[in-house]
Amino acid sequence: MTGRDGGAELNAIEPSPVVILVRPQLAENIGAVARAMGNGGLFHLRLVAPRDGWPAERAFRMASGADRILDSLTVHENVADATADLHRVFATCPRPRHIIKPVLTARGASAEIHAIGARALKCGILFGPERAGLDNDDIAQADSLIRYDLNPDFMSLNLAQAVMIMAYEWYIARDPDAPVKTLQTNETDIATKFEINNFMDHLIRECDASGFLKNPQKRPGMVRNLRHFFQRGEATKQELNTLHGIIGELAAGRNACEAGS
Amino acid sequence: MTGRDGGAELNAIEPSPVVILVRPQLAENIGAVARAMGNGGLFHLRLVAPRDGWPAERAFRMASGADRILDSLTVHENVADATADLHRVFATCPRPRHIIKPVLTARGASAEIHAIGARALKCGILFGPERAGLDNDDIAQADSLIRYDLNPDFMSLNLAQAVMIMAYEWYIARDPDAPVKTLQTNETDIATKFEINNFMDHLIRECDASGFLKNPQKRPGMVRNLRHFFQRGEATKQELNTLHGIIGELAAGRNACEAGS
Repeated sequence: MTGRDGGAELNAIEPSPVVILVRPQLAENIGAVARAMGNGGLFHLRLVAPRDGWPAERAFRMASGADRILDSLTVHENVADATADLHRVFATCPRPRHIIKPVLTARGASAEIHAIGARALKCGILFGPERAGLDNDDIAQADSLIRYDLNPDFMSLNLAQAVMIMAYEWYIARDPDAPVKTLQTNETDIATKFEINNFMDHLIRECDASGFLKNPQKRPGMVRNLRHFFQRGEATKQELNTLHGIIGELAAGRNACEAGS
Repeated sequence: MTGRDGGAELNAIEPSPVVILVRPQLAENIGAVARAMGNGGLFHLRLVAPRDGWPAERAFRMASGADRILDSLTVHENVADATADLHRVFATCPRPRHIIKPVLTARGASAEIHAIGARALKCGILFGPERAGLDNDDIAQADSLIRYDLNPDFMSLNLAQAVMIMAYEWYIARDPDAPVKTLQTNETDIATKFEINNFMDHLIRECDASGFLKNPQKRPGMVRNLRHFFQRGEATKQELNTLHGIIGELAAGRNACEAGS
């Protein structure tokens, strides 16, 4: 454990881009940014001329344990100094005007940042001060702009949320082919078709025995509909076992009665 | 303008999923959730048993103008009541255990939610209380789980950030084919190859006149390298005009001198 109040064992995932906060105002927001970065696996933080100075205890209180990010950050006088060792710089800019530059979405920028990192080049992302945002001179030092695709009728991200979206996209873009849907089954497995059919045999046998399927005209359609239902949802072995048990239990009364009669 | 302190003209984008906060604790977080929803174009909010009751003035102070979302929300006693009119329910769940359900990423869920909406079915997304998260009975009422793909070594989203990521993904998923990179050119346009070549002719003519390309062995390679550089960056008409001007101005001294001699 490291950090002032037992922060998490956060480590840099390399290569990862540098987050550069330009003239941030509230120390709390610097802490909230570190927390957002930790969620998305970002580690490198630089501050340009933080209004309240640095270090600031209030930042650590908002970092939810992302202390290592705050402990490792560096402070710079201006954007040129903060980006001096970088090869590519992106500027987040919600409403760019009169600027001729490539504009990427957070998703498009994340793909580029990974591609640039794979060439062993270093990237940075500029985030402007609360409310005012980056000024034109800051933006002129960037290669490309990042503009989030969000509701134009209500664009109101705070600083940590802006960093959160970028960190989230960057983290996901590590593995663009990761599955977006799985079935979590814990200690059981998805049932095979043999197991489903075995269950259907049991169910239909007991339905026949109980008289539920006694109408010969309707029986084939009813059996087919039952089969449709139980095929639909990727049943697990455990769930089928439970259903076998229920059928056995429900049928037990009649079976016992018949055995006794 | 609507809302208590001049909130934004937020409107529902239909069909959009319902955000359901289950037993939220702090009214401030309900307001921050409304703000996050506004950014991502979500509008419908429901509260299940909010600890501090409703309405709560502190929520409006955190909503940054998303008042219409708060004004329109409904309050419910339990999850069953809050989801009664819905066809599909997703439960956000950072660390699902012993639960057999489909698990989707925020991106995968967003695609499904749009697909479900296109069938005129209504979706909801459950978010649990701060810290504790949804309990097992809440989750049992959902069809599928949503688990964000974030850093497993540091998963620490607050409620508004969790809603923000889902709203962001939902908003982007409206148009999966939207370009992720463009060149913003404002009042000018990307130059055509004719315009680039016209500029190169001007540049090379003045380079020749100035003696910069006087070495006949090196001249072809140098011209080619200049051409490579100016082809690289999608120059605009305006930028080429500026470069034409610079070349003209730099050459003016020698041209005037030669004319005068």
